[in-house]
Amino acid sequence: METARPPCIILNVPQLAQNIGAVARVMANFGLADLRLVNPRDGWPQERAWAAASGAEWPLNAARVYESVEDAIADLHLVYATTARPRELQLPVITPREAAANLSREVAGGRAVGLLFGGERAGLETSDIALCQAVVTLPIDPRFRSLNLAQAVAINAYEWRMTVETGAPPAFRDGPPPAEASALLGLYEHLERELDEAGFFHPPEKKPSMVQNLRSALGRARFSDQEVRTFRGVVTALSRGRGRALEKLARQRDVENKG
Amino acid sequence: METARPPCIILNVPQLAQNIGAVARVMANFGLADLRLVNPRDGWPQERAWAAASGAEWPLNAARVYESVEDAIADLHLVYATTARPRELQLPVITPREAAANLSREVAGGRAVGLLFGGERAGLETSDIALCQAVVTLPIDPRFRSLNLAQAVAINAYEWRMTVETGAPPAFRDGPPPAEASALLGLYEHLERELDEAGFFHPPEKKPSMVQNLRSALGRARFSDQEVRTFRGVVTALSRGRGRALEKLARQRDVENKG
Repeated sequence: METARPPCIILNVPQLAQNIGAVARVMANFGLADLRLVNPRDGWPQERAWAAASGAEWPLNAARVYESVEDAIADLHLVYATTARPRELQLPVITPREAAANLSREVAGGRAVGLLFGGERAGLETSDIALCQAVVTLPIDPRFRSLNLAQAVAINAYEWRMTVETGAPPAFRDGPPPAEASALLGLYEHLERELDEAGFFHPPEKKPSMVQNLRSALGRARFSDQEVRTFRGVVTALSRGRGRALEKLARQRDVENKG
Repeated sequence: METARPPCIILNVPQLAQNIGAVARVMANFGLADLRLVNPRDGWPQERAWAAASGAEWPLNAARVYESVEDAIADLHLVYATTARPRELQLPVITPREAAANLSREVAGGRAVGLLFGGERAGLETSDIALCQAVVTLPIDPRFRSLNLAQAVAINAYEWRMTVETGAPPAFRDGPPPAEASALLGLYEHLERELDEAGFFHPPEKKPSMVQNLRSALGRARFSDQEVRTFRGVVTALSRGRGRALEKLARQRDVENKG
């Protein structure tokens, strides 16, 4: 049996090595260890991260670097985007406390989960948020929204730790687990390829936001592996038809042509 | 009548100006403003505190300096000591969440309250803790207890803020409401009609259960009206694509027939 793994922390384009170190430190404080870096601005490894971690070296030593958010979350079954900014995406917006309760349930079920954080300056792109199942928003005073990256991680890690200390809430969703992000991405890309061929994305400059809306809407359903396969079959059937039905239609056409 | 004042933050012998600045920043994030410094190691004011506050200058500008914890808390009706270390004192030990609930009650009653934090290296003296009504302990992983001062403030300030926001939940964007069942049914039937034509439901006796699985999977996403329209567009676009596949097949057949 798989051991329960605490959530991983994914930093998208983190800028300052000392913030990465501060994140590692607070991860260690609250029992997290899996740190993933997407395109750290100044490369990796960076000595200043270790200096800032105050001895919490293991998350840094084991940190993995990725070239895209897609790659970084590929093996995760549930990912929440932590961002203070309201977005145009139709995703549930939850508190760190609700997020921790949900993550805790998933982890208790043996599934890999993560929290995605944007870099210090730019935050998260809408296209990255669209890959996630919900947005986690902190109860920030609107008069001063500039929250330090490590502080944002700290509060989410603290809420996670509170669920560990008080015991995981009971599972609420039976049935097969949600598919990994990589399987979902496969479905999304399949659908988008066929829609592209069908001329759906019009005008072309609206394609990125149309793609985001499709992904976030479908993402909310949290398809299982079986459902991902089913919907890939749906896309194929709609766009290509199934062999025999197609044959039949072609025969009808033949008859019409000859008639 | 006195206005309700959020808790003040008292730092006992803080060492690093940048930590004082980071504390001010996170106080501003969560709606706190009253910062009190007891014997800051390097004197006060210190430029580096302002540099580290990222614009949260008002807690620093208004910060008051005291020569003892007694002086700093003289006007407060309730003070909690935040420390990770077990002490020999007979004081209640509570979580930041319990502390915030208690502080919130006191503040609602018009009383001035505060949270006392020790310096980076030494923490709090037993004699200082003895001035407080309880000890607030964070749920730190015992394997790595070294928590940054600003992080400790952040988590307590966050819990305070949660009590403020619970009354009037933040502007958690709801987004458009889910579509009515009739609109969803329209989408389902449209999809199923096209799938039927494409020969997707095979063998035919399995169609009812296949339809149920598609519907329940899509239903979990709780599409809005706009999303229902979008996905009807998706079905139409993909099915038209099938028309083209059919054309192609028919052309091939024509060629074969003529060959």
